Amino acid sequence: MKVLITGGAGFLGQRLARELLARGTLKDAEGKPQSITELVLLDVVRAADAGDSRVRTEVGDIADRNVLERAIDERTAAIFHLAAIVSGQAEADFDLGMRINLDASRLLLETCRQRGHRPRVVFTSSVAVYGGDMPEIVQNDTALNPQSSYGTQKAIAELLLNDYTRRGFIDGRVLRLPTISVRPGKPNAAASSFASGIVREPLNGVTAVCPVAGITRVWLLSPRKAIESLIAGLEIDAALLGMQRALNLPGISVSVDEMVAALREVAGDTVAQRIVWEPDARTEKIVSSWPGRWDTMRAERLGLTGDRTFAEVIRAYIDDECIQIR
Amino acid sequence: MKVLITGGAGFLGQRLARELLARGTLKDAEGKPQSITELVLLDVVRAADAGDSRVRTEVGDIADRNVLERAIDERTAAIFHLAAIVSGQAEADFDLGMRINLDASRLLLETCRQRGHRPRVVFTSSVAVYGGDMPEIVQNDTALNPQSSYGTQKAIAELLLNDYTRRGFIDGRVLRLPTISVRPGKPNAAASSFASGIVREPLNGVTAVCPVAGITRVWLLSPRKAIESLIAGLEIDAALLGMQRALNLPGISVSVDEMVAALREVAGDTVAQRIVWEPDARTEKIVSSWPGRWDTMRAERLGLTGDRTFAEVIRAYIDDECIQIR
Repeated sequence: MKVLITGGAGFLGQRLARELLARGTLKDAEGKPQSITELVLLDVVRAADAGDSRVRTEVGDIADRNVLERAIDERTAAIFHLAAIVSGQAEADFDLGMRINLDASRLLLETCRQRGHRPRVVFTSSVAVYGGDMPEIVQNDTALNPQSSYGTQKAIAELLLNDYTRRGFIDGRVLRLPTISVRPGKPNAAASSFASGIVREPLNGVTAVCPVAGITRVWLLSPRKAIESLIAGLEIDAALLGMQRALNLPGISVSVDEMVAALREVAGDTVAQRIVWEPDARTEKIVSSWPGRWDTMRAERLGLTGDRTFAEVIRAYIDDECIQIR
Repeated sequence: MKVLITGGAGFLGQRLARELLARGTLKDAEGKPQSITELVLLDVVRAADAGDSRVRTEVGDIADRNVLERAIDERTAAIFHLAAIVSGQAEADFDLGMRINLDASRLLLETCRQRGHRPRVVFTSSVAVYGGDMPEIVQNDTALNPQSSYGTQKAIAELLLNDYTRRGFIDGRVLRLPTISVRPGKPNAAASSFASGIVREPLNGVTAVCPVAGITRVWLLSPRKAIESLIAGLEIDAALLGMQRALNLPGISVSVDEMVAALREVAGDTVAQRIVWEPDARTEKIVSSWPGRWDTMRAERLGLTGDRTFAEVIRAYIDDECIQIR
C-alpha cells in the first residue's frame, strides 16, 4: 500500500510517519492489514526520511497542481492531509491561508477525483470551526460558526470532503482535533501555541509567556493520542461512518490554571513558576471563541479515545521528548 | 446609489429590478434613503432593461474576473448576488456548479475586497444547506449538513460571506430562502421545480408531473415576499445582525397534498386534476433531505415576514402572472 502524508515535515507528520513505519501495515478498505510499501512525505521543506527505504520525500508547494500530481497516483490508497497554515498566521495573512487551507485542500481532492481510484483521505480539522453562541458542551449537530479565517477555511474543506465522499470521488474522514498539547520544539504562529509553551518552556528551564487568563478553558489532546486517532480514523469501516464524515475527537477539558497545577504536580514548584502572565487581547479573542468541550460519544463508539488527565499528558511528553531529563 | 444584481436576467433578478426601479430608493448603511442612480443587471444573457435609463445591462460569465471588475466599482454600494446553478443541474454537472456557485461567489467577494469600499452584499442561500438528521423544526444553531453539491456550494459561500464580513471586506447578509413558489415561466433543472409546476401548469391548462409523494413537506415562499425580503435584508442595520450574517427567512410549511388542496380551493376541481403523480427517486431523495420547516424568530424580529396561506400565494400568482385569467 502506498501512503501520502501532506505536511510530512511537520511535527505531527513526522510522528505519524515514524508510527506508520514502525507498524508496517495499515488496514485496507476491507479491513485487511496491508504492508506499507511506500510512504510519501510531502512538504514545503524536505522531510526527514528516518533512513527508511520505504520513504520518499517530495518538496513542493501543495497549492501547485503539478506537485500534487507527483505525490498522488492510482496506487495512493491512503492520504493523511495535515498540511495547513496555522490559525494566527491565517488571520495575519488572509491570502496565504486561503491558498493553503482552502485551495490546496480542494486541489488535493480534485487530484484524487481525476485519478479516479477513490482513496481514503483523513483531513485534520479543528476546534476553530466552532464559535459564537455555543452550548456548554458542543454537540455533533451544533452549527459550525468559525470566528477566524483559519476556522472558516477548515469548515469549508470539511464541506468539500463530505461532498467529494458523497459523490464517490474519495472516501473521506474529517477528524476535528482538540488543541494538541504538549507539542515539542518552538512556539509557532498558532493562537493556541501557548497551550504547549507553558509546559514545554518551563520544563526546559525557560520562562513562558501565557497570553490568556488562567480561567480560560481549553480542550486538549496529546500527540500520542492524536497519532493513534489519525490511524484509527483512516481504518474505520466506511459503512460505520455513513454520510457524516466529521468526527469530534475526544479531548480533556482543562482550564489554564489546571494545566499549571498539573505541571506543578509533575515537575514541582520551581518549574511551574516559570510562567509569566501577559494577557494578549488578540490571542484571547481567538482562543476564547473555541469550545472548551464537546460531546465525544460518536468518536468513542467508533473506538477513538482521548487522554485521561493532563498530568499524564505531561509525563508522556517528558518520556517522548525530554531526553535530558531521563 | 449604484446597485448590482447578479443573475439579473433571471426571474427573481428581473422582479427585483422592477421593484427597485419602482421604489427609486434604497436605504444606505446609515438608514437614509438614497436615490438609485444606476442599476447594473449582470447575467450570462442580456437582461431586459425595462426601458429605464437607470438600467445598465452587462453580459458575461460571472466566473470571469474581468466581467466582475466591469460590474463592480467603488460606487457599487449594494449588491444582490442571485446568480447560481440550480440544485438539479449542480448535481448533474459538478464542475459547473463549483465554478458558478463557489468560484464566482468567491470572485465577487474578492472583487469587493480589492475595491476596498465595503459594499453591502445580499447572498441568497437555500434550504439545501440543511439535511441528514434534523430536528422537526430547524433551529438557528442547527448544523448545516448539505446532501447535495448545490447545498454544499451554498454553505461554503455562506462561510466565505461571514468571514469577508468579519474581516471588514464587505457587509454581507445571507438570506436562506425557502423554495420559491409559484415561479412563472417554464420548469427548470431545480429539484424543487415541481413546487411551482404543479400550480402553474394546471392553471395554464397543462398537465403537470409531480415527482414526489403527496405527504412530502415543503417550505415555501412566494416571489412577492422573496423580493420584499431581499430588499429588507439589504436594508437591515448591520449592528442588529452582529457577526452571524445568515438569516432563515420565514416560509410556510405545507405538504404537497395541501398545495393541491389549495389549488382546488382557488381554481376548482378541473384545474387540480391536471396533476399526474410520477414519483422520481432522484428528485425525492434531494427534496426529502431538505427541512420542511425552520425557526423564523430571528428573521421576524428583524422585520422579515413570510406568507400566510398557500391559497393566498396562488391568488397572488394569478394576479401577477396570469393575464389571460383576468
